[in-house]
Amino acid sequence: MFAFSIRKDEEPYVKEWAKGHPEIEVGYTDELLSPKTAKYAEGADGVVVYQQLSYTAETLQALADQGITKMSLRNVGVDNVDLDKAKELGFEITNVPVYSPNAIAEHAAIQTARILRQTKVLDEKIENGDLRWAPTIGREVRDQTVGVIGTGHIGRVYMQIMEGFGAKVIAFDPYENAELKAKGYYVNTLDELYAQSDVISLHVPATKENTHMINSSSIAKMKDDVVLVNCSRGALVDTDAVIKALDRGKVAGFVMDTYEDEVGIFNADWRNKTFPDKRLEDLIHRSNVLVTPHTAFYTTHAVRNMVLKAFDNNCELIHGKPADTPVKID
Amino acid sequence: MFAFSIRKDEEPYVKEWAKGHPEIEVGYTDELLSPKTAKYAEGADGVVVYQQLSYTAETLQALADQGITKMSLRNVGVDNVDLDKAKELGFEITNVPVYSPNAIAEHAAIQTARILRQTKVLDEKIENGDLRWAPTIGREVRDQTVGVIGTGHIGRVYMQIMEGFGAKVIAFDPYENAELKAKGYYVNTLDELYAQSDVISLHVPATKENTHMINSSSIAKMKDDVVLVNCSRGALVDTDAVIKALDRGKVAGFVMDTYEDEVGIFNADWRNKTFPDKRLEDLIHRSNVLVTPHTAFYTTHAVRNMVLKAFDNNCELIHGKPADTPVKID
Ligand SMILES: NC(=O)c1ccc[n+]([C@@H]2O[C@H](COP(=O)([O-])OP(=O)(O)OC[C@H]3O[C@@H](n4cnc5c(N)ncnc54)[C@H](O)[C@@H]3O)[C@@H](O)[C@H]2O)c1
Ligand SMILES: NC(=O)c1ccc[n+]([C@@H]2O[C@H](COP(=O)([O-])OP(=O)(O)OC[C@H]3O[C@@H](n4cnc5c(N)ncnc54)[C@H](O)[C@@H]3O)[C@@H](O)[C@H]2O)c1
Repeated sequence: MFAFSIRKDEEPYVKEWAKGHPEIEVGYTDELLSPKTAKYAEGADGVVVYQQLSYTAETLQALADQGITKMSLRNVGVDNVDLDKAKELGFEITNVPVYSPNAIAEHAAIQTARILRQTKVLDEKIENGDLRWAPTIGREVRDQTVGVIGTGHIGRVYMQIMEGFGAKVIAFDPYENAELKAKGYYVNTLDELYAQSDVISLHVPATKENTHMINSSSIAKMKDDVVLVNCSRGALVDTDAVIKALDRGKVAGFVMDTYEDEVGIFNADWRNKTFPDKRLEDLIHRSNVLVTPHTAFYTTHAVRNMVLKAFDNNCELIHGKPADTPVKID
Repeated sequence: MFAFSIRKDEEPYVKEWAKGHPEIEVGYTDELLSPKTAKYAEGADGVVVYQQLSYTAETLQALADQGITKMSLRNVGVDNVDLDKAKELGFEITNVPVYSPNAIAEHAAIQTARILRQTKVLDEKIENGDLRWAPTIGREVRDQTVGVIGTGHIGRVYMQIMEGFGAKVIAFDPYENAELKAKGYYVNTLDELYAQSDVISLHVPATKENTHMINSSSIAKMKDDVVLVNCSRGALVDTDAVIKALDRGKVAGFVMDTYEDEVGIFNADWRNKTFPDKRLEDLIHRSNVLVTPHTAFYTTHAVRNMVLKAFDNNCELIHGKPADTPVKID
């Protein structure tokens, strides 16, 4: 087995897996998989990969030319894999759909609390030597009604954290979880959730129906001074509508770990270059907006699970067993 | 009743209390209580106060000269009241010992999570246009063993929040709470807590015995990469010892809402002035230290309680009833 683009923070877990599987020869590189680097995997029965760079027809062909058609992604998304070519070449692909719901839920919770507490304003004052506390007063999490949209893996953990703070938690999901239902968390409609919530956090997929679910008309149904949290997918939020609502003071704060135009902007270094998106630049510098570049998942716990699970998957493929989390190619 | 130094964020709660007590005439000013301003209270039966400025013999005399000897503090501390003079003049004084344990516990929890998540490093990168996530990886709260020293009003709430995140919580207190004991939270000694904890948070008073309880020798008993949290009292921590441990990399992060030399430094504006404390200045600018100037208490919930409780207390004194939370003067 050979792994590409292993980062420093992944290396300990690659070694951990290899140690637990002495019968398998494990090689790896920090370089990305490309038509040029594919040859590093020569002799391997499968590859373990994770990169923003596309897995093009040429790249897949280069692997197949060496007899390698078993590919395990360390992440969820397969948008950058040429699936038609993969099918043609008889590839078997796996991904890691769930690696740590807590990583994202904790991030969303911390950022929610920071907005309520005005930490960005306070931190900047302190950094500049202004140690007066007034008027930078906080709102306690326990005083909020927190509306959670989507009670899947991540939403459920976010609910637990908010309850630990003592908040009142309500939720909406068209597919209600029986246990949560029994405990009375669900409201019947999104409109009810909008009307009651001081904080609204999104934990739903970016399906067609969910695109721009947060827009001018949904915001109009919300309470004044609502805090909006999007650590799911950028497409869920009409960014311009939120900016207008921030400007009007209707929305008190906005947490965004995802952004509808993030592709090609996030996870890149724009220092000493022209920042590519004026709207995002403006949001980053607002005192009541917390932008992170899709880092909510980025914890030691998540990275360990991504590595171990991908290696497990690849091992299963190599031994001709059905992998736990295969990617459907057709 | 007359109230001094009412801040903007207190005003709504003064009005709320007055509205609920139409039989009482309530006056207030944003000015501090001093020998000069005492006369504003003329005709009142009692005063409600809160200020860093000392309540000197002269100030107390000025009140007494107008027949006012019932004084209700909106805060806990009475260090700045000339108690000898107060006794001599027959003052009755009340304070507000508990106004919102959650304000402090939430702050401590948020800052703990921020250290684990390296948010200071990440935020600075983003601010400067560096949107790459690696190597700024986070530790999840749920993976930590959190050791809580002191399980009083605040420590207990902090424990609940950390449990909501899914952390393993252990605690030490010479006076064990029966309910917590039954649930198995307590370790038998501080040394056990030091040995097992990834995060250590202080929620004890600054008695003589507790002074510098966090010092070189207690730090030596802790795990590597421990995170220290002090939202209680500056005197509990030997700051130099923590700085040495930060420099060595033994301590991974330090949250401080209090500082042993804070008096005269916190709650003041040092911009365009020479910052008065080099050591504090250095701490403020470290990426793994989060300094706040004793603001953990500063929430709308706490301020409301401080105002309402102080007015309630003063009202009781005026009506010759025993106040709920009197300050012992002898
Ligand atoms: N920021 C990050 O780093 C990061 C990392 C991983 C996942 N995510 C995103 O988080 C989101 C949630 O992930 P998950 O693992 O909890 O997913 P999940 O599939 O476990 O849960 C999603 C839930 O949303 C519900 N849902 C769908 N449409 C809805 C609607 N209109 N209203 C209410 N509920 C609706 C579904 O019924 C389901 O219960 C996904 O969009 C995922 O892409 C973000
Ligand atoms: N940062 C802020 O804004 C702020 C605001 C209010 C209070 N505080 C501070 O928070 C601290 C805790 O407040 P509280 O209301 O929870 O107090 P509390 O009296 O309710 O609880 C304190 C607990 O500490 C225990 N204790 C004393 N010495 C101990 C030791 N050596 N080891 C372990 N436990 C010990 C006591 O038995 C008690 O249970 C106090 O120091 C208070 O001054 C800070």
